[in-house]
Amino acid sequence: MATTRTQSDGDPAVVLLSGGLDSATVLAIARAAGHTCHCLTFDYGQRHRFELAAAERVAAQLGAASQRVLTIDLRAQGGSALTSDIAVPKGRDADAMEHGIPITYVPARNLIFLSMAMAWCEVLSAQHLYIGVNAVDFSGYPDCRPDFIEAFETAANLATRAGVEDIAPVHIETPIMELSKGDIIRRGVELGVDYALTHSCYDPNAHGRACGGCDSCILRKRGFEDAGVADPTVYA
Amino acid sequence: MATTRTQSDGDPAVVLLSGGLDSATVLAIARAAGHTCHCLTFDYGQRHRFELAAAERVAAQLGAASQRVLTIDLRAQGGSALTSDIAVPKGRDADAMEHGIPITYVPARNLIFLSMAMAWCEVLSAQHLYIGVNAVDFSGYPDCRPDFIEAFETAANLATRAGVEDIAPVHIETPIMELSKGDIIRRGVELGVDYALTHSCYDPNAHGRACGGCDSCILRKRGFEDAGVADPTVYA
Repeated sequence: MATTRTQSDGDPAVVLLSGGLDSATVLAIARAAGHTCHCLTFDYGQRHRFELAAAERVAAQLGAASQRVLTIDLRAQGGSALTSDIAVPKGRDADAMEHGIPITYVPARNLIFLSMAMAWCEVLSAQHLYIGVNAVDFSGYPDCRPDFIEAFETAANLATRAGVEDIAPVHIETPIMELSKGDIIRRGVELGVDYALTHSCYDPNAHGRACGGCDSCILRKRGFEDAGVADPTVYA
Repeated sequence: MATTRTQSDGDPAVVLLSGGLDSATVLAIARAAGHTCHCLTFDYGQRHRFELAAAERVAAQLGAASQRVLTIDLRAQGGSALTSDIAVPKGRDADAMEHGIPITYVPARNLIFLSMAMAWCEVLSAQHLYIGVNAVDFSGYPDCRPDFIEAFETAANLATRAGVEDIAPVHIETPIMELSKGDIIRRGVELGVDYALTHSCYDPNAHGRACGGCDSCILRKRGFEDAGVADPTVYA
């Protein structure tokens, strides 16, 4: 495991950090690019709240300058297995995952998270907003696609000071958009990410052990296999 | 004052309702268009929390089918006189208001509010999202401009089910975008809005009385004058 130190003199960036494998890798990439990283994590009523503790561990390991946890109650909206008592599907094959929007989709989640992050970018005068969306293993979520990210960048810069004053706009940085899960893991290992600190499972047991059968566990397992890296995940 | 009854069988709409004059009028317009209106109000750490009680009164008076208050802590982000101890400017003239972004601007506020509202639209299968933005008396806020709203509509529909499934997109409805404050008040009076229930002041006293000197009070006063309608506001 590489040792990383907190850097506080680089160009500031806001990094959306869930505590999962993808966003941990994105934080490592942003740090490697020399940014002072301010991480934003959401406590939105997710059933896999173990990822909140994971996000804190990951931010510390990778030398984030700060980490903030914002509470937004997306349970009130409903409509997702991640924020309600709807069961998380298990054992789905690749074909099932590639067709349609899964019940674990949380309505407008990335739209909301990116919007909150834009506010923080504006306050910090940060011109970089990192998000770990991925179009390869994107599990059918509409808010992980490149055309959404591009349209959001346009809209968000019109909504803020950059829209009317002569200041630089914010760039939405999606460094793992085109990588397979295996490639993401290989890149993260090179950059010193300790994946044992991360949490991906949508439906962990009471001790935070991964179920091994939800879409997120299946994609993660397959990623470690493809990368030829030992999977550090502790399964129930 | 016209009596309105709750309608629950119209085409559903989500209405952003702050408790101010503009959004109250927008709710009345949405109701007049036959919509079943679900109102969304934000407790975001604003110093003028009296508007929250106003929103509840307005939703009841105008026959909303439901009203939900969501808590999002925008104080944590800072950067605005509305969410911090920065003083609210008083006694500014029209010229000062028309130039530059005022310190009462809350970073990315409408971006965040619209994003949360989009999530609710998706859950309710509502195809109409009403917001009381205005390009005439817009007080210098970048997130009240038509080009932002148009870009947001594009991005938001890409972020949600409408982006990948064959379902109708959500339209962002801005019925008072091109109206002067006087025209807004005239329209609202026609539709039975009781403006005594609304709250506009950014810096009320401890009893909720309007200061009379902030940008919002000045625009409101001038609006009643222009409309030739008696101003029901109780000033400190």
